[in-house]
Amino acid sequence: MSDDARLQIIPLGGLGEIGKNMMAIKYQETIIVIDAGLMFPEDELLGIDVVIPDISYLVENQDKVKAILLTHGHEDHVGALPYVLREINPPVYGSKLTMGIVEGKVKEHNLDNLQLNTVRPRDKVTIGPFEVEFIRVSHSIPDCMGLAIHTPLGIIFHTGDFKLDQTPIDGQVIDFRKMAELGEKGVLVMLSDSTNADRPGFTMSERVVGHTFDEVFGQCEGRIIVTTFASNIHRIQQVIHTAEKYGRKVAVIGRSMINNVKISMQLGYLDMPEGILIEMEEIGNYSADKIVIVTTGSQGEPMSALTRMATADHRWVGIEPDDTVIISATPIPGNEKLVSRTVDLLFKQGAEVIYDRSAGVHVSGHASQEELKIVLNLIKPKYFIPVHGEYRHLIKHAQLAESLGIPHSRIFVAENGQIIEIGKKKASITGKVTAGKVLVDGLGVGDVGNIVLRDRKQLSQDGIMIVVVTINKENGEVMAGPDIVTRGFVYVRESEELIENAKSKVKEALDVCYRKNITEWAVIKSQVRDKLGKHLYEKTGRRPMILPIIMEV
Amino acid sequence: MSDDARLQIIPLGGLGEIGKNMMAIKYQETIIVIDAGLMFPEDELLGIDVVIPDISYLVENQDKVKAILLTHGHEDHVGALPYVLREINPPVYGSKLTMGIVEGKVKEHNLDNLQLNTVRPRDKVTIGPFEVEFIRVSHSIPDCMGLAIHTPLGIIFHTGDFKLDQTPIDGQVIDFRKMAELGEKGVLVMLSDSTNADRPGFTMSERVVGHTFDEVFGQCEGRIIVTTFASNIHRIQQVIHTAEKYGRKVAVIGRSMINNVKISMQLGYLDMPEGILIEMEEIGNYSADKIVIVTTGSQGEPMSALTRMATADHRWVGIEPDDTVIISATPIPGNEKLVSRTVDLLFKQGAEVIYDRSAGVHVSGHASQEELKIVLNLIKPKYFIPVHGEYRHLIKHAQLAESLGIPHSRIFVAENGQIIEIGKKKASITGKVTAGKVLVDGLGVGDVGNIVLRDRKQLSQDGIMIVVVTINKENGEVMAGPDIVTRGFVYVRESEELIENAKSKVKEALDVCYRKNITEWAVIKSQVRDKLGKHLYEKTGRRPMILPIIMEV
Repeated sequence: MSDDARLQIIPLGGLGEIGKNMMAIKYQETIIVIDAGLMFPEDELLGIDVVIPDISYLVENQDKVKAILLTHGHEDHVGALPYVLREINPPVYGSKLTMGIVEGKVKEHNLDNLQLNTVRPRDKVTIGPFEVEFIRVSHSIPDCMGLAIHTPLGIIFHTGDFKLDQTPIDGQVIDFRKMAELGEKGVLVMLSDSTNADRPGFTMSERVVGHTFDEVFGQCEGRIIVTTFASNIHRIQQVIHTAEKYGRKVAVIGRSMINNVKISMQLGYLDMPEGILIEMEEIGNYSADKIVIVTTGSQGEPMSALTRMATADHRWVGIEPDDTVIISATPIPGNEKLVSRTVDLLFKQGAEVIYDRSAGVHVSGHASQEELKIVLNLIKPKYFIPVHGEYRHLIKHAQLAESLGIPHSRIFVAENGQIIEIGKKKASITGKVTAGKVLVDGLGVGDVGNIVLRDRKQLSQDGIMIVVVTINKENGEVMAGPDIVTRGFVYVRESEELIENAKSKVKEALDVCYRKNITEWAVIKSQVRDKLGKHLYEKTGRRPMILPIIMEV
Repeated sequence: MSDDARLQIIPLGGLGEIGKNMMAIKYQETIIVIDAGLMFPEDELLGIDVVIPDISYLVENQDKVKAILLTHGHEDHVGALPYVLREINPPVYGSKLTMGIVEGKVKEHNLDNLQLNTVRPRDKVTIGPFEVEFIRVSHSIPDCMGLAIHTPLGIIFHTGDFKLDQTPIDGQVIDFRKMAELGEKGVLVMLSDSTNADRPGFTMSERVVGHTFDEVFGQCEGRIIVTTFASNIHRIQQVIHTAEKYGRKVAVIGRSMINNVKISMQLGYLDMPEGILIEMEEIGNYSADKIVIVTTGSQGEPMSALTRMATADHRWVGIEPDDTVIISATPIPGNEKLVSRTVDLLFKQGAEVIYDRSAGVHVSGHASQEELKIVLNLIKPKYFIPVHGEYRHLIKHAQLAESLGIPHSRIFVAENGQIIEIGKKKASITGKVTAGKVLVDGLGVGDVGNIVLRDRKQLSQDGIMIVVVTINKENGEVMAGPDIVTRGFVYVRESEELIENAKSKVKEALDVCYRKNITEWAVIKSQVRDKLGKHLYEKTGRRPMILPIIMEV
């Protein structure tokens, strides 16, 4: 078989990490891309706003890129799209809600001349040698789809993010029949969501949360405040239905929550009974037992509506002693402390808070092990590539697949950038393209690198000491200074002696250089840095960044 | 009753937080202090090493402070002791293991002339008007004690940290009989551990982990690496016993683990079968199925032994593909990401990793709700003060107590510094003493305050831009500069244009000042800061700290 007749699967993000999901699939002269997600930065990426995939590979091959296919509207699947569309501009395909969310995004980024296409489950789109079939799956946002990509070598099945919810809120059960049909035909390679691959058992149905809401709403006599992910429209729907049952009005608070509710209502994804929705300014017109507030802040985000309510910092709504707050979400790893703090603040304001993992107020949107096994058995692919997960999730998913009889040699636990090449007879990892993290900080995309981050890290730990001295350029004599300015090191007014001693150390270092006739700035600076650094460490146990600046007149 | 005949209970740490536990108890002219713990800093305390309680109140009343009583040897109960003993020097009382740990600490801090006293369970010590009785409790370090403090007004019972382990590893069951006796006599006020007050049910016995070890050890054919808290001697004991059963040698790696094992062996808290312990250099002398490694790093700490093994950065031990690593701990809130990363790295090195909360490889050291209820019913105190926990834990514990019939008015959910005053007839919060966080950064205790932290925060987000200009002091003319140096902002070599434009902006601002004859430095600097800041935000979307420095010649 010639090289040309091979299929290449190239993950550009989402493998070995939670977030920035992106996958390229290439056959001959055509590349299609699945998802374009972003990731929120880990703690050590100081000052970074978001992280997006490195798409050098797509930019280099932009004439070949014929489509971007979106599985659903979560940030980790569509959040990088505006950045990608600045560089390349192929047609984009997604479900109605997904494209509704995308339209909001591209508007914010002032992008135009875009080719945005809405597709429905079971729709088929032909893109070069590929025929792409969209398949309904259930997840924690409506209108999610997996993909069956029919290629000359066989079918690629990509689950997207999914769970097997048998009683979804919108009644749209995952398209098992289509999946069975694909399995029956024979699937060449499956890519499947690994987020919960280390969780035994089944993920509960979204409907379980509705039962808990019903119980809680039935008992509460004060206001009820529910916070969840702004994109979890099913959850919001359940709040609304329960509010209706108990004769409560619903106020929506928080920018992203308001936006999502608006889009979902416009596109028909939220069933909103007439007159139930009120503005937050109207809350005061009703008694406490007639009010439900739906709000952002489920992750304890410092600027979110709930956090501001908890700190009595919100313009319209404060927490009252008879309020019941339901945290209908679990903390995303890394946010545990923020969420705990919010819970504490709410308790301090006198509210009752229902927040526990065991309280039945949240379920995951991702399939657990038993569900993953069902899909693996239903599809029974020739090759299997676990996707969407940190390394341990991919490994656990691979182990599950192996336990169901897929041979080890046909399972690829891959890394971002690796080329998984599939031919008629065999598949293997044959190379690597550029892949990685591009850091977005303010308006800058990719202009913050390791040196900048290392400096931020050092600055954040012990601050900076700046030493300025003006020198006569003729003879190297000190004309002014040394002056010392510090930030983030010690509070100067209380450390005058330390600063004076530091100046003496600098003078000594300069004197030595002057006497030895050392004139190279680099040498002088390094003398100052060494002498001063040692002194400061002895006196304070800290290592601030030391920045000598020499001015010549 | 005169004011003098009142008892004051003053929490100085550990209420509304996990860590830095410290409690003062005052009657007339005598103060006794329970514990002197530290806390590890939250993320936003950039660069801070540890946090200790503010002990101004004790220093002001140091002639009255007659004893420090230690419940057990964990850092959050004894870690601040060296700092406290620098300021005040009363006698210290604790169990044999606790005092062994304390002795190591005071040696590191070069403290002498200390009065360190070892006591045993059921020992009684008279301190002024108080008779203190030490009572055995079970927890996740051996030799823990609660306290019954007999006062002229009645008994104060302090649980320390505890759980009701009915099958503890050392056979030393919590002293229920003594607690029953106290309850029968009548307890005036109880202070009880709230760490797990939001967990339903019972905390499992430490012995459960031993059963899991037995199962895992029985199946493994490669090396076994167990990581846990270095102070969890019972856990280490179980590893050793299981290793013995399966004919494996044990190597201990990691400084704090080695220290704790050494102290515990010296003091008789570890039963170490002859010849089972080997040095890490000897590991290579045995086949993989004959080795167990016990190591630090259960929290994913970047410099710990396990992390260094996982990154192939450890001098003696690397991870091998047949290794089984048992993470016998749960992440302390805030450490989840670090632990996950370590697990991923271990999987990448080819090891099998047992890490899950559900895997039976860890149990908590703190009592859950059913245990707390048993103790509440056994003691049935007149007044109840939940201690050791964040606000939500204290509230949940208070709710438990109320559900058992202790009247709401007799339960005090207090804050650090509040004075809970107990008289013959009533108790109430009557005032507040100084209490709070003292930040330790390097050698500095308390010299890093809000301004320094705010600066570190800003520096960590967008870095710093330093603008230096040398001016003729006669006429304000610019003699040299402006020069611009940045750190943590953008990588300068790739941003020459940005820097050049920034210089122009500074020149413009200086020119304006010069022309307007503005000579006050503060005004000139603020002009530079405003003009440059606005420009940089427009161009980059970032707000670096801008630091103008003017030199005069």
